[in-house]
Amino acid sequence: MKQEAGNTVVLTPIGVIQSTLRTCPEAPKQGSEGAPDAWLEVAPAVARGLHGITAGDEIIVITWLHRARRDVLEVHPRGDKRLPLTGVFATRSPDRPNPLGLHRVRVVEIAGNRLKVGPIEAIDGTPVVDVKPVLPGGTDS
Amino acid sequence: MKQEAGNTVVLTPIGVIQSTLRTCPEAPKQGSEGAPDAWLEVAPAVARGLHGITAGDEIIVITWLHRARRDVLEVHPRGDKRLPLTGVFATRSPDRPNPLGLHRVRVVEIAGNRLKVGPIEAIDGTPVVDVKPVLPGGTDS
Repeated sequence: MKQEAGNTVVLTPIGVIQSTLRTCPEAPKQGSEGAPDAWLEVAPAVARGLHGITAGDEIIVITWLHRARRDVLEVHPRGDKRLPLTGVFATRSPDRPNPLGLHRVRVVEIAGNRLKVGPIEAIDGTPVVDVKPVLPGGTDS
Repeated sequence: MKQEAGNTVVLTPIGVIQSTLRTCPEAPKQGSEGAPDAWLEVAPAVARGLHGITAGDEIIVITWLHRARRDVLEVHPRGDKRLPLTGVFATRSPDRPNPLGLHRVRVVEIAGNRLKVGPIEAIDGTPVVDVKPVLPGGTDS
């Protein structure tokens, strides 16, 4: 293991999700499973980074799942105890050492430094740490 | 902006990339552009989280692009000065406020806590912060 892997990494959220989903039990496990659209409010200090995003674009929103547990290494997939315990890196469990969420969503509307995106299962108040375009073909992520 | 967005987030890398790519100028911009396979060495403390990943799986590796600049909000896409300045959130530039890299790769081989994955454009020593499976259909990210 190289020394870099021992260092910690500090992220400053670039924005926050404003959603009608208020609690984790309300949230579907994936955006495609009935999640609503939500607003992504981007911090004014980095809003210039949105330049070039237009309504209709598909983007990948990377969130910090702030309610997740970081001390979990194995889970029953989808919380179904009939399924065998599986390593978190082989699942999309929010509980994992670095609880980052990946959400491929469509931009529905843009209002200044706010993007309406969806469908997205992240709950209200979820910090956003990055936004990226889906690459042509969408095969990279 | 909710208060959560002002807080910082601390990630502890779960592993590191071991690659024949030693410097950024050597690295293609995307894995699909001629990148090699590389080893992802996972820290022993979290290696149990790999349980269930098998050779042949497609996974998403999230890296910390430790050589990137964090003070850049607009770039010429692909470094091509003929293209207009564009917000970093509308590009895959490594330079961005939180330089996270997304790499959709195939698991070629597994040896204990090491996964051979590729093709991947991350350079040697790049910290890895998360690994996720590609969802069926691959439409989520």
